[in-house]
Amino acid sequence: MNAEIIAVGTELLMGETQDTNTSWIGQRLPEFGLEPEYASIVGDNLTRLTETLDRAWRRSDVVIVMGGLGPTLDDLTRDAIAKMLGEPLTTDPELKDWLEENFARRNVRPMPRQNLRQAGIIPSAVAIRNAMGTAPSWWIDRDGKLLLTLPGPPRELSNMWTTEIAPRLKERLPGKKVMSRTFKTIGLSEAAVDEMARGVYDIPGMDFGVYAKPDGIYLRAIAKADTEAEALNTLLRAETMTRDALGAYIWGTDEEYPPERAGELLLRRGYTLAVMESCTGGMVGAALTETPGSSAYFLGGAITYSGAMKAQAGVPEETLREHGAVSEEAARAMAEAARRTFGADCGVSVTGVAGPGDQDGVKAGTVFIGVATPETAGVSRHEFPSRRPLVRNRAVTAALLQLIQALQERAP
Amino acid sequence: MNAEIIAVGTELLMGETQDTNTSWIGQRLPEFGLEPEYASIVGDNLTRLTETLDRAWRRSDVVIVMGGLGPTLDDLTRDAIAKMLGEPLTTDPELKDWLEENFARRNVRPMPRQNLRQAGIIPSAVAIRNAMGTAPSWWIDRDGKLLLTLPGPPRELSNMWTTEIAPRLKERLPGKKVMSRTFKTIGLSEAAVDEMARGVYDIPGMDFGVYAKPDGIYLRAIAKADTEAEALNTLLRAETMTRDALGAYIWGTDEEYPPERAGELLLRRGYTLAVMESCTGGMVGAALTETPGSSAYFLGGAITYSGAMKAQAGVPEETLREHGAVSEEAARAMAEAARRTFGADCGVSVTGVAGPGDQDGVKAGTVFIGVATPETAGVSRHEFPSRRPLVRNRAVTAALLQLIQALQERAP
Repeated sequence: MNAEIIAVGTELLMGETQDTNTSWIGQRLPEFGLEPEYASIVGDNLTRLTETLDRAWRRSDVVIVMGGLGPTLDDLTRDAIAKMLGEPLTTDPELKDWLEENFARRNVRPMPRQNLRQAGIIPSAVAIRNAMGTAPSWWIDRDGKLLLTLPGPPRELSNMWTTEIAPRLKERLPGKKVMSRTFKTIGLSEAAVDEMARGVYDIPGMDFGVYAKPDGIYLRAIAKADTEAEALNTLLRAETMTRDALGAYIWGTDEEYPPERAGELLLRRGYTLAVMESCTGGMVGAALTETPGSSAYFLGGAITYSGAMKAQAGVPEETLREHGAVSEEAARAMAEAARRTFGADCGVSVTGVAGPGDQDGVKAGTVFIGVATPETAGVSRHEFPSRRPLVRNRAVTAALLQLIQALQERAP
Repeated sequence: MNAEIIAVGTELLMGETQDTNTSWIGQRLPEFGLEPEYASIVGDNLTRLTETLDRAWRRSDVVIVMGGLGPTLDDLTRDAIAKMLGEPLTTDPELKDWLEENFARRNVRPMPRQNLRQAGIIPSAVAIRNAMGTAPSWWIDRDGKLLLTLPGPPRELSNMWTTEIAPRLKERLPGKKVMSRTFKTIGLSEAAVDEMARGVYDIPGMDFGVYAKPDGIYLRAIAKADTEAEALNTLLRAETMTRDALGAYIWGTDEEYPPERAGELLLRRGYTLAVMESCTGGMVGAALTETPGSSAYFLGGAITYSGAMKAQAGVPEETLREHGAVSEEAARAMAEAARRTFGADCGVSVTGVAGPGDQDGVKAGTVFIGVATPETAGVSRHEFPSRRPLVRNRAVTAALLQLIQALQERAP
């Protein structure tokens, strides 16, 4: 079945706010056997919104409308759907009570008059209350088609989708069940993953995709079957075969990201970690501390942007003098100093030239990464395309993946 | 005149890649007097793409198509435009030569056969060569309307727009010239900015908008006039009046961001800076070093995620013991320690509970920020909504704005 996504809001069209909802929803549709064929952004304009809804309703099986559900007069999604379907828009007394209670709980009495608009409903819509805001969703099941509204704020949208919409869709939609699994590899080229996974491709009822991402090559396996149990079975078979084929190169799956995976491995080994960062200026520490509970293994570290700071943090001055601050030797000494100075089991270091210009004869984009654990010590050299933000982002990912590899190699 | 943006690519619909081009282009259209009315994403499907192009060409004055210009068979933008306009698609010999030279320079000989597709052209299109890739843009000026293609990779797109498309649009489009200026303020509410700027609103030929952003309240002034000189004149008048009205609260304009502005102020005063970060784990350092040349004022600092690290970096243990690591006193001591331990003129500290859970009786979302300069020392207390990424991002912005305010107050 085909699906269509409509994001509503002039601020999205003008680029004042970046629309991330379309991509978030688009990712989740295949799981329900839905194929997104069109997505559009429409401003807060009744004529254009109604026209866009009308076209979507005629050509698509499932239409998902995001935003335009607020209380103000330029929130027109409700009005446009009512107009498009030719149904009257009236105030739902139960929704009105719920809204008033909502405001009362926040000690806003009486409820601002304009919020009454959010209690509007049409006969064919079922209202679904929003646990995180005042905009309810509409679930419209008419003429064999579905039209759903979702609140625009990404946090409300994702909560509404996960807790309310996804379970209803699972019940409502017929046909094939789809399940997928993404294997994230490191140390292999796209062609090599493709080559090594070839045997897995022959499993019937499965589709595969190979993608290059900043944190390595992904292999996505998609199982389609008549029942969920059958899809799961096929997927588990693919999992076993893929792990046989790519084993040591797989560092994570699905929604796992490098900082999280590094944290898991550190926890499992009972190791602590400290960093010493030069050209990344704190980004490795920032990435590691994205994960709640990272204080269990991450001690902190030093941002040694200047040469004097490196020496102060325990890097031998003679190493810096002889080999320069951007060198294999400096990276090795920095990783060791991170361990020693801060009393950590593992140390990660980054030193490089982020650019745009070259520095002391070292080309912009050159980065050395050091990883030291109680068992191993290694330095890698990278030549990233010399755009400053790219060099720095790539360096962070490379540092985390190098740490993951070092911890994985000897993992119990 | 109205404009319509079309992004092409199944990966955008499926959410595998987040479309950022629509928002980037949307932001730039008002400058040319163009109003974006529709934006859409279409997959790599000839029928759907042709149909979407056809609708756009009928209803919009300017149509901008992004992506689908690669060499492979699923890059269908050229084919769809040819079909929609009913023009033949042939190989342009000059484009072919240019492409072959392009590959020869990269030592790829002969050019892969499929890249010949990128030399395709239709009679009413003028090809514009791409300085950063192999996909040329098409400039189609027909029936009083414009249709432009832009390469999909954001870096190629922005370069093509800035160097080639924007100057041509300026020449081609009639009517009002539009110029804008955004003033970024801190320390005022949306309502206060609105109130204080009211006098400026009366300047004829100008529109104003007030927006709340993570780094303060923005006031956007838009001047429309028949000539560029006239628009500039109006805008300069607004600039003077706005600075009179909001003076000390303005920390930057247009594309200026806090890290850059902080760097400028540090450079102007000849000051160096060191940081001491707890809950932000290196994010303040990461933000400061986004700016090329930041080594002129940023020395580095310490990521003191654990209590022991704070003490090691020079924070008195007795302060930590008596007041706790997340306290006004700790933030003050950390900012001072950043200056003293690392020999910097200024110190910035962040200590807080990023969440999701509370910690040692301190509520998640509570953050203390310390700023110490040779002249001032201050600590601010914040209660951010307790979502971890949000707490951390807000803390970074708040820290940089606090530093900017401290440096601005006594700026020469």
